[in-house]
Amino acid sequence: MDMPQPDPAIIARKAQIVARLQAVLPADAVIHEPHEVRAYECDALTAYRCPPLAAVLPRTTAEVSAVLRVCFEEGVPVVPRGSGTSLAGGALPTADCVILGVARMNGVIETDYANRFIRVQSGRTNLSVTGAVESDGFFYAPDPSSQLACAIAGNIAMNSGGAHCLKYGVTTNNLLGVTLVQMDGTVLDIGGAHMDAPGLDLLGVICGSEGQLGVVTEATLRILPKPEGARPVLIAFDANEVAGACVSDIIKAGVLPVAIEFMDRPCIRACEAFAKAGYPDCEALLIVEVEGSPAEIDEQLALIKAIALRHNPVEFREAADEDQAKRIWLGRKSAFGAMGQINDYMCLDGTIPVTALPFVLRRIGELSKEYGLDVANVFHAGDGNMHPLILFDANKPGDLELCEAMGADILRLCVEVGGCLTGEHGVGIEKRDLMAVQFAADDMEAQLRVKDVFDPAWLLNPAKVFPLGVTAGRRAA
Amino acid sequence: MDMPQPDPAIIARKAQIVARLQAVLPADAVIHEPHEVRAYECDALTAYRCPPLAAVLPRTTAEVSAVLRVCFEEGVPVVPRGSGTSLAGGALPTADCVILGVARMNGVIETDYANRFIRVQSGRTNLSVTGAVESDGFFYAPDPSSQLACAIAGNIAMNSGGAHCLKYGVTTNNLLGVTLVQMDGTVLDIGGAHMDAPGLDLLGVICGSEGQLGVVTEATLRILPKPEGARPVLIAFDANEVAGACVSDIIKAGVLPVAIEFMDRPCIRACEAFAKAGYPDCEALLIVEVEGSPAEIDEQLALIKAIALRHNPVEFREAADEDQAKRIWLGRKSAFGAMGQINDYMCLDGTIPVTALPFVLRRIGELSKEYGLDVANVFHAGDGNMHPLILFDANKPGDLELCEAMGADILRLCVEVGGCLTGEHGVGIEKRDLMAVQFAADDMEAQLRVKDVFDPAWLLNPAKVFPLGVTAGRRAA
Repeated sequence: MDMPQPDPAIIARKAQIVARLQAVLPADAVIHEPHEVRAYECDALTAYRCPPLAAVLPRTTAEVSAVLRVCFEEGVPVVPRGSGTSLAGGALPTADCVILGVARMNGVIETDYANRFIRVQSGRTNLSVTGAVESDGFFYAPDPSSQLACAIAGNIAMNSGGAHCLKYGVTTNNLLGVTLVQMDGTVLDIGGAHMDAPGLDLLGVICGSEGQLGVVTEATLRILPKPEGARPVLIAFDANEVAGACVSDIIKAGVLPVAIEFMDRPCIRACEAFAKAGYPDCEALLIVEVEGSPAEIDEQLALIKAIALRHNPVEFREAADEDQAKRIWLGRKSAFGAMGQINDYMCLDGTIPVTALPFVLRRIGELSKEYGLDVANVFHAGDGNMHPLILFDANKPGDLELCEAMGADILRLCVEVGGCLTGEHGVGIEKRDLMAVQFAADDMEAQLRVKDVFDPAWLLNPAKVFPLGVTAGRRAA
Repeated sequence: MDMPQPDPAIIARKAQIVARLQAVLPADAVIHEPHEVRAYECDALTAYRCPPLAAVLPRTTAEVSAVLRVCFEEGVPVVPRGSGTSLAGGALPTADCVILGVARMNGVIETDYANRFIRVQSGRTNLSVTGAVESDGFFYAPDPSSQLACAIAGNIAMNSGGAHCLKYGVTTNNLLGVTLVQMDGTVLDIGGAHMDAPGLDLLGVICGSEGQLGVVTEATLRILPKPEGARPVLIAFDANEVAGACVSDIIKAGVLPVAIEFMDRPCIRACEAFAKAGYPDCEALLIVEVEGSPAEIDEQLALIKAIALRHNPVEFREAADEDQAKRIWLGRKSAFGAMGQINDYMCLDGTIPVTALPFVLRRIGELSKEYGLDVANVFHAGDGNMHPLILFDANKPGDLELCEAMGADILRLCVEVGGCLTGEHGVGIEKRDLMAVQFAADDMEAQLRVKDVFDPAWLLNPAKVFPLGVTAGRRAA
C-alpha cells in the first residue's frame, strides 16, 4: 500500500488545534502523537478503525467545557468516548475528529443512602458504582456484560441494560440527572435527585442519544438496597420454540424474575467447551433467576417450576447452594469469550415482543441456512432483547459482507414483528442505515430537528445513528 | 360592567376559522356558540377563566391532524384538553384559541396480555384503562386522585403520578409509545410496545411536556398483573417531624411499600368531620400500604412496625380485613373534597428529597404563621411529593394574592432543599414564573429550543410552562 503523503495544510491545521487544546488542558491530557492516538482508533466493533486527529482526557466538567468550546470555534468534530466498549461503533473516530475520553473523570461526588442516589463523574465504570455502595448494602442495577470496563457515560449514551434489567429496567429507569456540556461549551444541569422535573424533561432524550446532543460529565444514579438473596434455576429443552414458549408463559403468569437468559445449542456447546459449567446437552437452555427473602424465592420458583414442567423440559436444575448458583451462571457469563475462541462473530442486538420469540428463532434458523452462516443465540429473553451471534470467517473474502447482510435481515425481522433495531447496544455506525426500516421519514425528521437544536453544526459524534444520506445536507462542511 | 362591543374584524375572523374547522370535522364536533364554549373556559384551577374562540371534539387521529393543519395555516393557538382536571391551569384557554378536546377519543385499540401492554385513544380516562383489563387480572399503575375523570392525554401531558407511584413510578415509567400529531398536522409514531428505541428517544421529552410539543392521540401503556393482595396500616404521631423522620427511616431500610401517605392535623380534622373514617386525634398520620402474597405482606409490615415503634407512635393500626382497610383509606381519599367543604384552598405540588421532610414541614409551619394563612398537608410522602393545601377566603380581597405569594415561597423552599417545583400537576400557568427559580438561563434555553423545533410558531398551549417574559420574543405575533 502506498503511504499517503502528508498534506502541509492538514499538518498546520492539526498543529493549531493541538496547540489550542494544550492551552486549556494540562500537558498530559492532550494526546496527539500518531503512535499514541492509535489507542483510540476503534471501540469493541473492531472491524472498523480510524485513528483520530487527537484525543483529550479531561478531569473536570470545566475542562470538558473548554475542550468543546475550542472544537466548536475551530469546527472540529468531537467523538465522546467512555471506555470504548461499544459493540456498535459508537465511539469510532473520524480522521479529523478529537476523541474526548472521560476515563479520568471517575470520582464519586456524593452518596446519599436516605434519598437513594449516588452522584458520580461519568467516566466511572459501571461496576465501581456498585463498588462504592455495596459495603453499605446498596447496588446500581443496570449490569451490561461489559460492566467491569464500561463507563457510566457510555451506559447513558447507549441506554444500556443487562441481564437483570427485566426487573430493574435499563439505564433510563435508573438515571435521575446529568450534567451535560453542549458543543458550544455551555454547561446544563438536567434533572436531579428528585422525582419528576418541571418544564420539558430533557433527561429522557439525552439518555440513549449516543453522544449526539452533548457530553455527559456527571450523573446522578438511583441506587437500590441489595435484595436479601437470589437463586437461579437452569431449564433445558429439546427445542428453541419450546423454550421460547416457556419464557412467554412465565412473563404472562405475572412472576417477575430478575433475569431470564436464553442460550441455544451452538452457544451451549461453545460455552461448555470453554467454561465446563456442566450444562446439559440440549437444544435450548434457560437460566431464570429470582430474588427476595428465602420465602419469596421459594414461592416464585415453585410457580416457575410448575410453568416449566408443562413444557416437558429435558431437565430442571435448582441451585441448592451458592456454589451451584455460580456454576449455573458460569457458562452464560463466559458466552461471549467462548464464542470468540471458536469463531469470528458479529453480535446483534434487536428487541422483539416476548410472544414473537418462537417465530423469530425459527426464522433466524431459516436465514442461517439461506446464508450458509451459523448463528448462536444467547440473550435476555425476559424482555425480548435478542443477541444473535452470527459466526463468520474474517479471513474469507466476502464473509463479513455476507454476515452484515444477514444481520440486517434479522434486524428487519425484529422491526416487522413489532420490535426494534436495538435493545442496549445503540445504533452507532453499525445500524445507521437501518434506521429507515424503523422510522418513517417524519418520525426521523423529528429526531434530526432535535439534534439540530443541540448541535447545529453537527460536530458531535459524526456519521453515526442516522443514515448518511439523510443527514448529508445537515452536517458541517 | 360594560359589555365589550363586538369587533367586526374579530367576528369575521372567528367565522372563517369555524367554517374551516367545520369543513374538516363532522357538524357535532365543532363548538362555537358563546354559551357552549363557556363549558371550556377553565380547568380545575378555577380561579382563572377565559372562554375560547371555539372548541373541537375530534374522534380520530386523522381528524386531530386536520384540525391542527387548519389552525397552523390560520395561525390560531390551540389548547389541547384531556378531561380538564388540571390543577395548574394546564388546559386554560386564551380568548383567541381553539380548544382541542380528546374526550370522544376513548376507545381501546389493542390489548396484549402476553406482552403486557394496552393501546388506547388518549381521551380514555385513567380508571377505565384498568377497567378494560382488570377482569383478566391486570391493572394500569399510575393512579392520580382524579383517576375517575382524568384522561390519559392529561396524564401524559403532566406526567401524572398518584398514591401508588412510590412502587410503580409515574406516567413516564408506564408509557411505552404515543401517536403524536404535530402543530402542522404531521403524525408521528414514537416508541412502541418494545423496550428501548433506536436513535433519539423522544418519548421522554413528550411525556410531561404539557401539550407544548404536539397532541397525543393514542398511547401504548404498560399493564401489570394485579398483586395477590394489599394491606394498609395507619400510624399516628404527635408531631409532624416525627412522622417525617419515620417515612425517611422506612425508605432508608429498603422496604418498598406501594404507598406512604401523610396527613397533618388540619387535614385529619377536616377529613374526619367529612368522612368519619375513625381517624385518631393526632398531629400527623401515615398510611402505609404494602402488597404481595400474604407471607410477603406479613414480612414487610413486621419490618415497618418495628421501624414505626422506634418513633413512639400514638397508635399503630393494622387492617385486619378488607373493611378495615377501606376505612383506613376512606379519610385520605376524601381529603380534597373534605378541605373544599370548609375552605377555599390552593393545592401545591412540590417535590423534595425524603430526608428533607421534617425540615420542610417545620418551615411550612413558620411560613403559615408569617402569612397568617393555615396550611393543611396531605401528600405522597414516600417519594417526597408534597401537596400543601393553603387555606384562604376567596371573598376576602387580597387573600388569593397572599396565598399565591405564600405558595411561591413554599415552592422556592422545595427547590432550595434540592427538590423541584412540581411532582405530578405540572407547571401550567400556575408555576410558569417560578421556572426561573428551578432553572438557570442556559438550562431553560435548552428547553425553549426544543419547543421551537416542535412548534416554531409557538401556537400550542400558549402562555404556559415558561415565564412570559422569557418567551415573549418567541411567540407567534
